[in-house]
Amino acid sequence: MSAAPEVAPVELADGRIRVVIEHVTPLVDGGRFPIKRVLGDSIEVQADCFGDGHDVVACSLLWRHARSAGWQSAPMQPLGNDRWSAAFVIDALGTWQYTVRAWVDPFLSWRHDFQRRLEAEDLRVAARTGALLIEEAAQRAELGGDAALLRAWAQDLAGAASAGAAPDELRRIGLDEARAAIARRQPDLRHSLTFGITAKVTVERRRAQFSSWYEFFPRSAAGDGVRHGTFADCEAWLPYVQRMGFDVLYFPPIHPIGRVQRKGRNNTRDPGPADHGSPWAIGAEEGGHDALLPQLGTLEEFRRLVRRADEHGIEIAMDIAFQCAPDHPWVREHPEWFRRRVDGSIQYAENPPKKYEDIYPFDFESNDWPNLWRALAGIFEFWIAQGVSMFRVDNPHTKAFGFWEWVIAQVREKHPEVIFLSEAFTRPKVMHRLAKVGFSQSYTYFTWRNTKQELTDYFTELTRGPGREYFRPNAWPNTPDILPAALQWGGRAVFMSRVALAATLAANYGIYGPAFELLEARALRAGGEEYQDSEKYELRAWNRDDPASLAAYIGVLNRARRDNAALQSDAGLRFIDIDNDQMIAYAKSTPDRSNIVVCVVNLDPHHLQSGWLTLDLAALGLEANQAYQMHDLLTGSHFLWQGARNYVSLDPQRSPAHVMQLRSRLRRESDFDYFL
Amino acid sequence: MSAAPEVAPVELADGRIRVVIEHVTPLVDGGRFPIKRVLGDSIEVQADCFGDGHDVVACSLLWRHARSAGWQSAPMQPLGNDRWSAAFVIDALGTWQYTVRAWVDPFLSWRHDFQRRLEAEDLRVAARTGALLIEEAAQRAELGGDAALLRAWAQDLAGAASAGAAPDELRRIGLDEARAAIARRQPDLRHSLTFGITAKVTVERRRAQFSSWYEFFPRSAAGDGVRHGTFADCEAWLPYVQRMGFDVLYFPPIHPIGRVQRKGRNNTRDPGPADHGSPWAIGAEEGGHDALLPQLGTLEEFRRLVRRADEHGIEIAMDIAFQCAPDHPWVREHPEWFRRRVDGSIQYAENPPKKYEDIYPFDFESNDWPNLWRALAGIFEFWIAQGVSMFRVDNPHTKAFGFWEWVIAQVREKHPEVIFLSEAFTRPKVMHRLAKVGFSQSYTYFTWRNTKQELTDYFTELTRGPGREYFRPNAWPNTPDILPAALQWGGRAVFMSRVALAATLAANYGIYGPAFELLEARALRAGGEEYQDSEKYELRAWNRDDPASLAAYIGVLNRARRDNAALQSDAGLRFIDIDNDQMIAYAKSTPDRSNIVVCVVNLDPHHLQSGWLTLDLAALGLEANQAYQMHDLLTGSHFLWQGARNYVSLDPQRSPAHVMQLRSRLRRESDFDYFL
Repeated sequence: MSAAPEVAPVELADGRIRVVIEHVTPLVDGGRFPIKRVLGDSIEVQADCFGDGHDVVACSLLWRHARSAGWQSAPMQPLGNDRWSAAFVIDALGTWQYTVRAWVDPFLSWRHDFQRRLEAEDLRVAARTGALLIEEAAQRAELGGDAALLRAWAQDLAGAASAGAAPDELRRIGLDEARAAIARRQPDLRHSLTFGITAKVTVERRRAQFSSWYEFFPRSAAGDGVRHGTFADCEAWLPYVQRMGFDVLYFPPIHPIGRVQRKGRNNTRDPGPADHGSPWAIGAEEGGHDALLPQLGTLEEFRRLVRRADEHGIEIAMDIAFQCAPDHPWVREHPEWFRRRVDGSIQYAENPPKKYEDIYPFDFESNDWPNLWRALAGIFEFWIAQGVSMFRVDNPHTKAFGFWEWVIAQVREKHPEVIFLSEAFTRPKVMHRLAKVGFSQSYTYFTWRNTKQELTDYFTELTRGPGREYFRPNAWPNTPDILPAALQWGGRAVFMSRVALAATLAANYGIYGPAFELLEARALRAGGEEYQDSEKYELRAWNRDDPASLAAYIGVLNRARRDNAALQSDAGLRFIDIDNDQMIAYAKSTPDRSNIVVCVVNLDPHHLQSGWLTLDLAALGLEANQAYQMHDLLTGSHFLWQGARNYVSLDPQRSPAHVMQLRSRLRRESDFDYFL
Repeated sequence: MSAAPEVAPVELADGRIRVVIEHVTPLVDGGRFPIKRVLGDSIEVQADCFGDGHDVVACSLLWRHARSAGWQSAPMQPLGNDRWSAAFVIDALGTWQYTVRAWVDPFLSWRHDFQRRLEAEDLRVAARTGALLIEEAAQRAELGGDAALLRAWAQDLAGAASAGAAPDELRRIGLDEARAAIARRQPDLRHSLTFGITAKVTVERRRAQFSSWYEFFPRSAAGDGVRHGTFADCEAWLPYVQRMGFDVLYFPPIHPIGRVQRKGRNNTRDPGPADHGSPWAIGAEEGGHDALLPQLGTLEEFRRLVRRADEHGIEIAMDIAFQCAPDHPWVREHPEWFRRRVDGSIQYAENPPKKYEDIYPFDFESNDWPNLWRALAGIFEFWIAQGVSMFRVDNPHTKAFGFWEWVIAQVREKHPEVIFLSEAFTRPKVMHRLAKVGFSQSYTYFTWRNTKQELTDYFTELTRGPGREYFRPNAWPNTPDILPAALQWGGRAVFMSRVALAATLAANYGIYGPAFELLEARALRAGGEEYQDSEKYELRAWNRDDPASLAAYIGVLNRARRDNAALQSDAGLRFIDIDNDQMIAYAKSTPDRSNIVVCVVNLDPHHLQSGWLTLDLAALGLEANQAYQMHDLLTGSHFLWQGARNYVSLDPQRSPAHVMQLRSRLRRESDFDYFL
């Protein structure tokens, strides 16, 4: 083998490599970031593979868990136009890798030509060539069955050629399908090429893709708005949360709250002695991010709550807000982690002219950044040790992206089950970057997307755009920071339609309760989105037994989600044409279409609206004239539909949404009785 | 500075780098391949640049010729949504590089906040902070004017703050625009990030983007079809080719033609002793790829022809066909460069059941590939030394892609003026790969795209798809291998419309003449595309003075191309709606819209067709009710148009195409006389 010429092409160690691999998908930013999947998913990989001339190319998908030494492989199948595909199933958490190997295959090229040869002498020469290639395959085969079988085949073929066998006989031997399958298992990979990029997959547990969040202030758990709630009080809420069907119970910060510059009720700057302050002003003399607010209880009581929640099928998610109250211990112990003003004081958070004197942000440009990073990673470690595996991260977009990429990788290295939700309500590319660097789920603009056009555009982008590989939306109709205008003015019908939209458009969604299900709609200021008497600054009393409560309605929605795999993923969303701009319609389906849910929502909270849907029957796996049943999972009503065009009418005062399971196989004649 | 944590993110040497650079464009396959441009082009580069929080980010475009040590730079301007843009002009041939640098800018962040501060004390503290930042900028400035100016500003600002200056006074000093411009020249780049990919540009001369090719067999240059043409005979054709307006005269191979297995007339296998064989069967006892067919003349005569062509503004393009006749000297000298059959003979070219016994392909899997590569590179070098700078490469898709990438880079390293045309009529991804690995221009499917829909789809893909950065189409209505069915049956009108389409849709185009302008339409076999009595196998007599000749028509087309910059690039093509499926309409314009050409072609060769165009007036820079003149560059006719909808009628027997220059500024009232 001679030395390579001076200016060898980038990827060629050997000029005899004639194959090309291009456009491997999925791949995020050229492989810089992993795609995201959950346990059990099948990952389809495609690539363009081709060589020069008309020789036959073959290619394999290679994959492995990042901790495995060896690669698994499967042959890729041609899709036409030089594109190839194969899939693999992921069966363990953590990071997986995949890439593609391709080669010009001498045996397959020979076979391709052999089928097309006409002349007897030509066939005999080619048969001898084939016998040599098969003999080489036998040499590559390990000792055992394959080698012997191939050797016998090579002898048969060479023998027939020497004996002057007729063309049909040569073809019969040379094109033997069963023996060719054996030869294909021993490809000549001497001039194979492996794609230059090893793509990565972050594999998480299923809850990363499908989760129902209930945000709740433990401070109000006592229920009377006077006594400070405890973890023990929170236990009493578990059956209520379970009945509503939520599987994640998310607490705002539960750490000691700073006393310096503490905020009063409704975000005032003159708190009374009984005021509790904002839980996001973290740290006081009792401790910082690894301590608990004494009023809530002890670490032991917190761990007990986590266990009790688990018994109810509920996981506790913690709030991670990396910022300090002025009396946080770290301010004293690590002054180098904070920015200093020219007058020597520590720089509080500000966005001029606004000031947040009760919050000191960390300085991610600190020269001591490695120790700051390690300390913050330690906070995750601490709470993971207490049994927490889900974190909602507060304002991650105000901390360095590089830190998140590092800390999430650090945590996942030991705890691949941990789920991170990014609370970044900010510019689109910033939100996407946070998802790319590792956050499992992301808050979205759903909170402010109200019209049919807005919702259609946004969820089409989320589920069909490039972000679908790494950005998992988590849709919230409200949060403690955001009481959207629509909820302030639309009344009960809007609460119902907004939660129905969130629960069916997004596989991950959440509400801030009990404010939501109890229809809390009072804003602090007209034109603003802050709640009046916000729990962020005070204890609240909530009447769970209010007859107007949407708890039962939400329970039905969450049961529909739990019973229908189509609602547990974002991939299968397709909007449906409906001839009324006040109504939105969409279908969600599993990849095999065994479960299909069709949703129709009346976006007008004041009037009955009706319209004609035009369904894409082929996409739903339906025949043109087939009758099919639509079973409304919210009301129990059934409708018999037929063909593409069907009529829907929704009265917002009764139920602004249909969430209908499509049943295309009616089992008995009597199934029709529903409609008679 | 402390050590980095264990699992540092890929691109972070320093955790304090808070800025992100994403989605830099243009970039081909993540920077694996260069984009292509020509001398004098301005290259606009865009990137997403942003940081965490609300600090202000700044970024620069960096560029250089690959042979320069230092980078040039220019500030990028925000386009909104975290996207930035800047451009640079290329003023030398060869490879250029560009990348992006971004940083969180402390001075600009300070300035952004300072503008928004309201309270006097707050402003005074901030003024002192600003003075420190400006002082730092002064330290970064080299000794000289900037440092002194900045230091004075810092003192002014700090002084005013100490003296308790009023808010307005502090703002006046602190927000001084002129002084801020000086500070911006000295950014704090300590935590800047440079994009991980250095993008490449292949910069070629203008002819790579705009060229008019005339393919001509020198063997027929004597004109009588009996005597073998010579280079001296070719000289006599130069004025004719010049009058038609072509600037590239491309010769099929001019090397000695093999005698072993020589083909007879019309590709028969029993040549007579007077038959000349196919010039693509290269090599005989007289020599190989670096020799000339003795009948054509000597190397000295060839060089003289190259010089004489240059005097006519015409460049000679050579055919590079890397394959050998059986009697090519290399077959004897380098048997290891060819594949061997099992019977010991050398493998001829075949695509079973077809055989090409007069052609031996090179074996690009030869163990001696480095020497083969060097020998083939030597062929380019040899002809470049004779004055040739344009090569049409025959069937590059049957040779290894890696070889082309290497050899084109090798040649361009010393001869950046050399232009390579890829003659690959094959699958789309293969054609694109050849363009990516370096070919300047590529043959296209134009030859078989006849209908309005086909042409619209194909040229939209070529000019708007990702290939626009690297794939320069060269459109041919015919070649010696392809007499398309449309030309066989459509008559003169189709010859006219096809050449008009090629010349106006594509900035690079060519014809195989005189067969084309003399309307040669006789096919060897019905249903095939081979010419009857093809010049590939015999000498032909051509009557240049045939009154039916399209030479004058083509001359007018080429003059329109030469006079209209819009026709000299593929970027400015936009199709225009016209309400007749037999008619196609499109506009081409320069980026500044100073030159706009509107073309309308009747695709029906038999009937007069007419229709209404709907122009996008805004895209053409026209007012809604403005009158504008359309000057037909083919006929000299003028039309006065107004508004978006205008009527066109074309009689294929007279002229099936309008190629109209849009003149929106009528200079005098009398300009209207044309239409009265």
